[in-house]
Amino acid sequence: MTRTQDHRWVETVTLSPPSLGDNTADADRLEAALKKALGTRTVHLDLNLLKQLPERLREWNYRATAVMFKDCSGTGILVHLAAPDAIDALCGLAVDLGTTRVVLRIIDLCTGQHRGESVFDNPQLSVGPDVLARIHHVEKTGGLSQLNRLIIDGINHELQDLCNRCGISPENIHLMSVAGNTAMTHLLLGLNPRWMIREPYIPAVNRPGVVTAVELGIHVHPTARVLVFPNVGSYFGGDLIAGILYCDLDQREETAILVDVGTNAEVVLGNRNWMMACAGAAGPALEGGVTRMGTTAGPGVIDRITIDPVSMALDIHTIGDQPPRGICGSGVIDLAAALFRSGMIDIRGKLLPERCGDRFHLKDGLGHLTLVPAGQSATGEDLGVTQADLDSLVRSKAAMYTILETITGSVGMQQQDLETFFVAGTFGAFIDPASAITIGMIPDLPLERYHSLGNSSLGGATRVLENSGCFDRVNQIRDGITYLELNVNQDFMNRFSAAKFLPHTDISRFPSVRWPADP
Amino acid sequence: MTRTQDHRWVETVTLSPPSLGDNTADADRLEAALKKALGTRTVHLDLNLLKQLPERLREWNYRATAVMFKDCSGTGILVHLAAPDAIDALCGLAVDLGTTRVVLRIIDLCTGQHRGESVFDNPQLSVGPDVLARIHHVEKTGGLSQLNRLIIDGINHELQDLCNRCGISPENIHLMSVAGNTAMTHLLLGLNPRWMIREPYIPAVNRPGVVTAVELGIHVHPTARVLVFPNVGSYFGGDLIAGILYCDLDQREETAILVDVGTNAEVVLGNRNWMMACAGAAGPALEGGVTRMGTTAGPGVIDRITIDPVSMALDIHTIGDQPPRGICGSGVIDLAAALFRSGMIDIRGKLLPERCGDRFHLKDGLGHLTLVPAGQSATGEDLGVTQADLDSLVRSKAAMYTILETITGSVGMQQQDLETFFVAGTFGAFIDPASAITIGMIPDLPLERYHSLGNSSLGGATRVLENSGCFDRVNQIRDGITYLELNVNQDFMNRFSAAKFLPHTDISRFPSVRWPADP
Repeated sequence: MTRTQDHRWVETVTLSPPSLGDNTADADRLEAALKKALGTRTVHLDLNLLKQLPERLREWNYRATAVMFKDCSGTGILVHLAAPDAIDALCGLAVDLGTTRVVLRIIDLCTGQHRGESVFDNPQLSVGPDVLARIHHVEKTGGLSQLNRLIIDGINHELQDLCNRCGISPENIHLMSVAGNTAMTHLLLGLNPRWMIREPYIPAVNRPGVVTAVELGIHVHPTARVLVFPNVGSYFGGDLIAGILYCDLDQREETAILVDVGTNAEVVLGNRNWMMACAGAAGPALEGGVTRMGTTAGPGVIDRITIDPVSMALDIHTIGDQPPRGICGSGVIDLAAALFRSGMIDIRGKLLPERCGDRFHLKDGLGHLTLVPAGQSATGEDLGVTQADLDSLVRSKAAMYTILETITGSVGMQQQDLETFFVAGTFGAFIDPASAITIGMIPDLPLERYHSLGNSSLGGATRVLENSGCFDRVNQIRDGITYLELNVNQDFMNRFSAAKFLPHTDISRFPSVRWPADP
Repeated sequence: MTRTQDHRWVETVTLSPPSLGDNTADADRLEAALKKALGTRTVHLDLNLLKQLPERLREWNYRATAVMFKDCSGTGILVHLAAPDAIDALCGLAVDLGTTRVVLRIIDLCTGQHRGESVFDNPQLSVGPDVLARIHHVEKTGGLSQLNRLIIDGINHELQDLCNRCGISPENIHLMSVAGNTAMTHLLLGLNPRWMIREPYIPAVNRPGVVTAVELGIHVHPTARVLVFPNVGSYFGGDLIAGILYCDLDQREETAILVDVGTNAEVVLGNRNWMMACAGAAGPALEGGVTRMGTTAGPGVIDRITIDPVSMALDIHTIGDQPPRGICGSGVIDLAAALFRSGMIDIRGKLLPERCGDRFHLKDGLGHLTLVPAGQSATGEDLGVTQADLDSLVRSKAAMYTILETITGSVGMQQQDLETFFVAGTFGAFIDPASAITIGMIPDLPLERYHSLGNSSLGGATRVLENSGCFDRVNQIRDGITYLELNVNQDFMNRFSAAKFLPHTDISRFPSVRWPADP
């Protein structure tokens, strides 16, 4: 795997000491050393750093440890200056800014060591569960600043705890990198995302670049900088750019695909020479995304289901082996695959009462399938799925498949030619590819071609702090992506309709799928 | 006179409107328009400006008036965005940051019109009268921040009054330019100047560049930028750079000299091809500068003196024709010239009791010359000068002359070849060149070659706000100056000793000087 040239954010510089023959200013002296270290023609020094400069340089005998980088315009930025033999921790904070959950990770900028990690619910959940609800909330008076304060305060609060656990102070944090979707990034920056959801879907900013922590109100070192991952457009955000960085999609010889199955389905296909991207929320047919159904993963949530083909008994696994209290997305996909294999649903995803037996009942004319009876569930109520849930899943899986078909088709590739298929996102991490293939959500590839990346947004944000060479790469990735506007035309709708069957109307595409025994 | 290409800070830009075929972010759209207008490859947009961008662009139908410029690294900086037909005043504030007095001037950035002006005593006078006293005050705990607060608060307070008088709000000010000496600039920026007065005389910064008004704590528009004039070294500050800009010394075909006779004597000699500078506080022989003697000009201060060659009667002029209360620098020079012409002092500047008559008396062994008897002065006390005052003037004028001789000599020029002699500074404005020639302070050139520039520091600061093309020129001027370190060696001391006579030991240099009648 090709790697970016290794380069840390921290370097020790030696300055020429002043003399009567060389009596330029302290700042000039420092600038000269930083220009040499960074290979830039200009260097920006914060006024705050200049204030301590004369005393520090003399105290440190004209040597210093600098936290610094070269920004997009080629200007060197000095972030912090410490003693040449600094014993203070010089740390960075990587942030995965999820719609549902936020993850913080502290990285030692000198060694690249991970010092600690913290996960918390995005406090904006109190306002709305998803991106759309939050963007609508912005229309209300004070809505934007409320959402902005929630996430900033949330990060500040959680960071203080995390720092305590790591034995550092927030003042030890000099760099942050933040990867989130376009809407979450806007809300973090206090930018109005309202035009993102109105034709022609315009974000306020695509390349937020580097801002100061002070501007954002994040309580870290006063001169700290925040590297905000850029987005390609309203529906393809910095979290995906981070994912590309994390799996080195932009540096691979062979063409690979990266799919983030989160609230929406975002896909990028490419290699070191080109990248093509699209997102699944781009048309009204796909509204609601792939994973509307299901609870967020957590203790007691069903994540794995199999059905014994003979006894039709359900084998249910919950997270943490706790009494069941809900079912998450990966559980629903497993369930649908198992129901299909056992003949309890048909190729349209409709429940077949005669095959479901006692588990099936009608309520207000809607079919229900009980998975866990009230007596065994954590909630004291029946736990199950409805025909509406299954219909929603079928639409979602059809959307996913159609997007994959469309993007590979757009570059003249067959899905079968995909040698490497990365699945990103926390949800993606739980999906069983075999189940997803059974219902025709993803192509029928050998299972070893599927690679779960886990939290690739956090991974990319981390990578940038481990290696400053990745900072330039982030912008190259962003600018190297061709965004495929999903044109929801008759062709697309035809493909979508064909994909609304389990696994597909063209069953030759899914040779590995075990067909249910004829009831 | 060659002039910089005329260019205002304000321009109206037209953006391409968004469409499904062009759905890049609002910020990208604006950046593209600004890059085109400024001819830069990168543009920096403040987060604060981005916050209002989506609503404003739609309201203004994708046209806007931009206050912007290209900074030293070639990056475009957007300072403010207003409606395309903005009726709000878009103003700039030019500041002459003097050690004694501060002048503010408001300029309309669209028209270049001067809207108003205000002069006030530098509030740091309460701490110390001169640069040295203030730098020493920095050694005290809290001294630096006290001096910084004094000047910042002073500007804020005075600016509010000035804005009221001009019918604008401080929020209408989007750009500031500040020209001051190196020490005053450091104190404004909150930078420690203590190493400037210790060998090898190192300032903290030479090119402060552009800072934000918020960083400085100046209460103007929150996104306003402050262009701080750079300095060449500890003893050659931004006020001189502003002076060079103001008189276009850097763009002239013929070699000219600019002399700022302020607390120190600073000199720059040059033309469009080269500039050579030096300053008079660079050696212990010159300590105290040229104008230690004398009161600050103001009502009742003597600024002109002549002596009737026959009656020996003094003809005294005071500012505002008020009863006399002191004598300012230009008055002292006039007085010395008149005393010399009338034979009341000798060529060493010593009072001749027999020629001074009743006006002379000894006190504690020191000669005193009464100018205004107690009964006629505003103070109710005798007003006069002592032999010590005159000795000090002689040292000062000798220092001035030696510096001029040294700098012209360093480029192989004769002083007589100087076709244009600019005298800068408020003190310089009052000097009568004929008197200064008589005592041998400045070379014996035809009087029409002397040009008083008045407040050239304010003039240069104003020029930058009238014409953004001058912003680049400021840095070119600064980098184009060769600073001549006044090496106080035996040669220099010999020249200095020769200049300690009135007008000079070599009287052939001053053919125009009317020699006193032999007593």
